[in-house]
Amino acid sequence: MDRVVNFSAGPSAMPLEVLMRAQSELVDTNHAGMSVMEMSHRSKAFEDILENTKHLLKKVMSIPENYKILFLQGGASLQFSMIPLNLLQKDHEAAYIITGSWSQKALKEAKKVGQTTVIATSEETQFRNIPDFSQITHKENLSYVHITGNNTIEGTRFTTLPKTDAPIINDWSSGILSEEINVSDYGVIYAGAQKNLGPSGVTVVIIRDDLIGHAPDNLPTMLDYKTHEKSDSLYNTPPTFGIYMIGLMLEWIDSLGGLKEIEKRNREKASLLYEAIDQSSLFYSPVNKEDRSLMNIPFKTDSEETDKAFIEFAASKQLVELKGHRSVGGMRASMYNAMPIEHVERLCSAIREFEEKVK
Amino acid sequence: MDRVVNFSAGPSAMPLEVLMRAQSELVDTNHAGMSVMEMSHRSKAFEDILENTKHLLKKVMSIPENYKILFLQGGASLQFSMIPLNLLQKDHEAAYIITGSWSQKALKEAKKVGQTTVIATSEETQFRNIPDFSQITHKENLSYVHITGNNTIEGTRFTTLPKTDAPIINDWSSGILSEEINVSDYGVIYAGAQKNLGPSGVTVVIIRDDLIGHAPDNLPTMLDYKTHEKSDSLYNTPPTFGIYMIGLMLEWIDSLGGLKEIEKRNREKASLLYEAIDQSSLFYSPVNKEDRSLMNIPFKTDSEETDKAFIEFAASKQLVELKGHRSVGGMRASMYNAMPIEHVERLCSAIREFEEKVK
Ligand SMILES: Cc1ncc(COP(=O)(O)O)c(C=O)c1O
Ligand SMILES: Cc1ncc(COP(=O)(O)O)c(C=O)c1O
Ligand SMILES: [Mg+2]
Ligand SMILES: [Mg+2]
Ligand SMILES: [Mg+2]
Ligand SMILES: [Mg+2]
Repeated sequence: MDRVVNFSAGPSAMPLEVLMRAQSELVDTNHAGMSVMEMSHRSKAFEDILENTKHLLKKVMSIPENYKILFLQGGASLQFSMIPLNLLQKDHEAAYIITGSWSQKALKEAKKVGQTTVIATSEETQFRNIPDFSQITHKENLSYVHITGNNTIEGTRFTTLPKTDAPIINDWSSGILSEEINVSDYGVIYAGAQKNLGPSGVTVVIIRDDLIGHAPDNLPTMLDYKTHEKSDSLYNTPPTFGIYMIGLMLEWIDSLGGLKEIEKRNREKASLLYEAIDQSSLFYSPVNKEDRSLMNIPFKTDSEETDKAFIEFAASKQLVELKGHRSVGGMRASMYNAMPIEHVERLCSAIREFEEKVK
Repeated sequence: MDRVVNFSAGPSAMPLEVLMRAQSELVDTNHAGMSVMEMSHRSKAFEDILENTKHLLKKVMSIPENYKILFLQGGASLQFSMIPLNLLQKDHEAAYIITGSWSQKALKEAKKVGQTTVIATSEETQFRNIPDFSQITHKENLSYVHITGNNTIEGTRFTTLPKTDAPIINDWSSGILSEEINVSDYGVIYAGAQKNLGPSGVTVVIIRDDLIGHAPDNLPTMLDYKTHEKSDSLYNTPPTFGIYMIGLMLEWIDSLGGLKEIEKRNREKASLLYEAIDQSSLFYSPVNKEDRSLMNIPFKTDSEETDKAFIEFAASKQLVELKGHRSVGGMRASMYNAMPIEHVERLCSAIREFEEKVK
């Protein structure tokens, strides 16, 4: 079948070049006489792959020396627990800014571990905006402040950060590698790989080294960041193929000019679609303008039936996975790095064409 | 480069047919117009893959209706914790049979959770045999009895099971799919995928349904078997590519005639190598004859230097990854399903040739 245009929120479209490269060496990777999937994780051949992936991530994200890169399993969902289990100190609180279902889930897991406090939430607007957190009274004894930097479901994104002495923890699952950020603004950045990084099954954790090593003794070994830092992500068998694929994705980003160029493209792509939505009298964006995500763009009409008809219309043009998350309804276009502007243009045309048709 | 003969203990050799099949559809899987890596885990296309993999595992292992199949992350190492966290009841003990480093690690994690008891160990023989557990006095209030069905490092394997009313938990990482077993003899069978199942990054858990749902309320959601059972392994984003690869591996096994035929081949392969080792006056097997593994075969000479020379000699014939685990030394040949008997014959020839040479 011809390649479809895939607006899935994750797992999501990958660059055709990257897929073809992986395909070409799937049976014999790096001339090792075996597939990357067959390599012992303790072999030189795989260690080179791991080092290369780490090196490229450091380069592309300009990660400072005092941060460690860990490749873990369990998805961002397991980080919801690992963060408080490792970082929430006795007689301290963990602060959360609640901007959608993912932050709610993160908070729920932290509550099982210790004291939490919500310092801002946009629940009352159904998460259509990033709440104001500028007036946060200075809190004592905060172990950290947790944010969801890009809200995959609600289509919002942080453009400023809370002023706090506590380390900021960023669930950056759907934002990572989409724009330049200053890593040293954060204590921990974590992300499930299945958007801009690679296939599902790898979780990347970028952690400031002073935050490692404070877990309680009875914590399961696998949940302690120290375990993975000490062994360079090789305590047990890591998801080797996923780490290899992340390396290929990063080489591709690097070859395009890095995150500066990627961010420029992503801003152009997002502007194009927001413009088409804003100009339309049929479709609208539910999201507050200043807080709009570059990656995940929900839009709607006033009728569920019309939404459904549009999704079918788009699918007939090979534009697929446009159904919005069930908690929001309508449509959602996720446009990660792999999506070229031409594909966004096709969606914009479909929007205009559909509006003409139903007028 | 030509394909090497890969004796790695895991990740390990995969069937060339399977790799070539995966390669042929890496960019467009099942005519979906996208790679399996790009499919939303909530899409019909991926659900078909998940169902197919589950269906084939059920068929190949003859898994009874009252068992659930879960595809998780974190490797067998995370199961070392999930088992006691889910199954070790208050005022009960978890019993362990200690047959090597993996069972020791499993026990260590259980001790963090609750009361444990070691009902047999072969530590005093450096794990060269499976200890006698026939005289186990009937214990009350056991939540389970944990065994390591095949000991990847030490090269031993269970051929009988303890007589107990408690559910038997089997770390079957390096034994799964290598021989027929009676699933209903066990409460839980778990395995990291990276030997006979597929690539690393997926953990398969086969669990009797009455054992699900007894976890304490404050357990992280991701560590509760109930979470994954309720959502059919789709609570969060599963390792989609790995699940797909396991499906291809199972199709291959099924096409060969299933586990009956696979076990026959594995017995032939193992006999061949044990014979060559036993007949040699230079090499010997450190393992008690009755307890010898079909998958992982350690062997040695009396000199570390000679071991090293043999490993180099073998490598010059493209027989690679023969270095024994550092805790055992010498050599280890892991011969999972993907290894044809011809490759074992090449190792046997190398053994004889080397012995001639150094005589
Ligand atoms: C912002 C965010 N956080 C967390 C998750 C959960 O990630 P995972 O499925 O890897 O557990 C997602 C998944 O899409 C997400 O978008
Ligand atoms: C018997 C056994 N148990 C546990 C493990 C650890 O598995 P993982 O690396 O998936 O955590 C291994 C790894 O090879 C093993 O052979
Ligand atoms: Mg969200
Ligand atoms: Mg509009
Ligand atoms: Mg062992
Ligand atoms: Mg001998």
